[in-house]
Amino acid sequence: MKNRKLYMQIYDYYKNLIESGKLPEGSKLPSIRRCSNERNVSKTTVEQGYMCLCDDGYILPKSQSGYYVSKRGNAMKKAEIKNENKQEKSHILYDFASAGVDAESFNMDIWRRYVKSALRQTEKLLFYGEPQGEYDLRKEIANYARETRNCVCTEENIVIGAGVQTLLNILCPLLKGKKTVCFDDLSYRQGTAIFTDYGFRVTDNREKSNIIYTSPSYSTRWGDIMSVKDRFDLTEHARITGKLIIEDDYGSEFRYFNRPTPSLQGLDGGENIVYLGTFSKLLLPSIRISFMILPQSLINEYNKKKHLYNQTVSKADQIALCSYIRDGHLNAQIRKSRKLYMQKSKILTDLLVENFGKNVEILKTNSPLYVRCKFNINLSTEDLCRMAENQGILLIPANSRKDFPEIAFSVASVGIESLENAVKTLKNVVRNS
Amino acid sequence: MKNRKLYMQIYDYYKNLIESGKLPEGSKLPSIRRCSNERNVSKTTVEQGYMCLCDDGYILPKSQSGYYVSKRGNAMKKAEIKNENKQEKSHILYDFASAGVDAESFNMDIWRRYVKSALRQTEKLLFYGEPQGEYDLRKEIANYARETRNCVCTEENIVIGAGVQTLLNILCPLLKGKKTVCFDDLSYRQGTAIFTDYGFRVTDNREKSNIIYTSPSYSTRWGDIMSVKDRFDLTEHARITGKLIIEDDYGSEFRYFNRPTPSLQGLDGGENIVYLGTFSKLLLPSIRISFMILPQSLINEYNKKKHLYNQTVSKADQIALCSYIRDGHLNAQIRKSRKLYMQKSKILTDLLVENFGKNVEILKTNSPLYVRCKFNINLSTEDLCRMAENQGILLIPANSRKDFPEIAFSVASVGIESLENAVKTLKNVVRNS
Repeated sequence: MKNRKLYMQIYDYYKNLIESGKLPEGSKLPSIRRCSNERNVSKTTVEQGYMCLCDDGYILPKSQSGYYVSKRGNAMKKAEIKNENKQEKSHILYDFASAGVDAESFNMDIWRRYVKSALRQTEKLLFYGEPQGEYDLRKEIANYARETRNCVCTEENIVIGAGVQTLLNILCPLLKGKKTVCFDDLSYRQGTAIFTDYGFRVTDNREKSNIIYTSPSYSTRWGDIMSVKDRFDLTEHARITGKLIIEDDYGSEFRYFNRPTPSLQGLDGGENIVYLGTFSKLLLPSIRISFMILPQSLINEYNKKKHLYNQTVSKADQIALCSYIRDGHLNAQIRKSRKLYMQKSKILTDLLVENFGKNVEILKTNSPLYVRCKFNINLSTEDLCRMAENQGILLIPANSRKDFPEIAFSVASVGIESLENAVKTLKNVVRNS
Repeated sequence: MKNRKLYMQIYDYYKNLIESGKLPEGSKLPSIRRCSNERNVSKTTVEQGYMCLCDDGYILPKSQSGYYVSKRGNAMKKAEIKNENKQEKSHILYDFASAGVDAESFNMDIWRRYVKSALRQTEKLLFYGEPQGEYDLRKEIANYARETRNCVCTEENIVIGAGVQTLLNILCPLLKGKKTVCFDDLSYRQGTAIFTDYGFRVTDNREKSNIIYTSPSYSTRWGDIMSVKDRFDLTEHARITGKLIIEDDYGSEFRYFNRPTPSLQGLDGGENIVYLGTFSKLLLPSIRISFMILPQSLINEYNKKKHLYNQTVSKADQIALCSYIRDGHLNAQIRKSRKLYMQKSKILTDLLVENFGKNVEILKTNSPLYVRCKFNINLSTEDLCRMAENQGILLIPANSRKDFPEIAFSVASVGIESLENAVKTLKNVVRNS
């Protein structure tokens, strides 16, 4: 974070030179090394500054040669297009609707160390990985899923892939004879799209389907969970009717309790349930490692076909994650994030009460990632969200009433230090409504 | 490479202790740190040794606790199963049929440096990447494809994914109304499987198809290329009939000439051709980064749907590859590999002539990765390959005759220092036939 200013200084410096015409089209910028020496900053910082200039069309890289000032017209046009795209997002100061993670919660240094160590295992990296995922990593994931999610599994049931969609691409062709899938949440387009691509009928009617796709740990956008009774009923329904449940365990990691509600897969014994888990929320969204646990019948089908599918996660990342979990860092990371989110939720709750007094009622959530409340004001939820967005605050609408609006806040992406200003801005929004 | 002995020493040491019963079930092994200190070797070396012990079932990791000797019965059973699986491969001394790469040709240090630098860009890594792939990387890939493969493209045409199959998972649903695909090589099951999964009919009859999947740079297993005339004929045929060509440019990188035969995509102008390229051969097979170039009509379809598909390549790898290409390392790597493969092919050719004299006839290949020859002996190609395999030599059969067997050798995975022994072993095989 602290480098931001440095690379933005480089960005601003050259941007000004280019916009003022002092650096005309075709001029070469100093090499990254030279600029780094001259300014006594790291090469990475210079590169970041140059990348931003590239992004905004001011300069162009030439292969093996360096960076050159682009056509001014081109540059301006690019910049305009970029700005247009960014417009909606760039004025957002406080994103309480984010699916990102908190920069402070992830210890990048530790992860970097593990990737570095993995990249030293040159011999292993010379060959294609196992299609199903590295054996050692599958073992660690099986332990993890058994311990934290009560899953019934061994390394033999686990398939690793670069994201949930990649795993669905492997799963869909295995589901013979089952052609209608019910999504509890049809707005999860990234899930429905894959099934549609494979010719499945997608519905929200459980009765008329033979596959049920559900996220019991994320049944609302503010992390409500399916009750244990509903979980039992669902697995019972599936067992009696012979349906397959696909349990997308998104959002299960951050609960107020150390042991979250057990997974459907664990409740049911793993027989007719496919479990999907991901590490994107725990590590970084940009690290693409997910896994699925297949029941025995589907593992048999998978084993017949697995030589046809290449593994999609780089082996180095798999080796790194394996040691990272084995050495206890994943669990430590979960504890650390949970603590941070609890702290932020507490602060946000206090600020809401302090600023809105009896006009606010704090509602229960299952996850420390979210704060939810009802405002005792005469405004629709939709209007409140729109007005807040105009002032740079993104909120999650938690009902669709015309008065007494209910709002959820994700505390993932807003820093502790910004919470106070965010709530004060929101107070002004309400006052001026 | 030089660490192999060290970690195998650790492996052997504990294996012996466990097999002899000196370390009974449930005993805890020293921590990686302690073992590393005691033996004065790196922690990575210890970890590799322990991993091998895990792999073979001698020890089991317990989360956050350490490594324990497993049930002996379990251990032995595991070991047997493993051995059974490895049996076929483990006796192979000289793999001339490999699709791997040469350990010596890839400078891991440089790649490691770029990944490290990418992992320092924490702010970028906090968010999900662009579904299509990072803009900067797409720009570098567009340059690369234009310069080395004559492709007609910009960054807007390029989609990045974790392997060719992942890209086909995005492509297949875009191909509306085209439902029969012709594979020049039906034995490429990893390609045909994806199309079959999406309900396409797969055939080897070009006339009866509306999509043609072809690898013009790899029309045989020893890297024969499609002639320029055939390339023109094919693109012409596709244009007249309105067919779509999918050009899988596998194996185009290593040619005797600096500029290999232009891609179909380049010849045709990019209108009705999808181009697939991969970096697995250039970097390491375990680094999963591929790309496709879509023609304008398909890019329009893709843009409508791209928000539905998450990117599958970790952002750090994308950032690393972008800088790696930009700084000229990819081109340097290609030159270096080509030089190494030419040297190895030359040595192998000389050894064959030296050892087999007038009983061998060296045949032309297009790629320095391969040596091909005809043996003037009374043996079928099949028998020669089988007998060679029994002596630890894997060969590529290059015809199916009953005498005058033709053989291709991939020099990728066999080290220079092993070539002489390999050819001498082969000479004995032929002598004893």
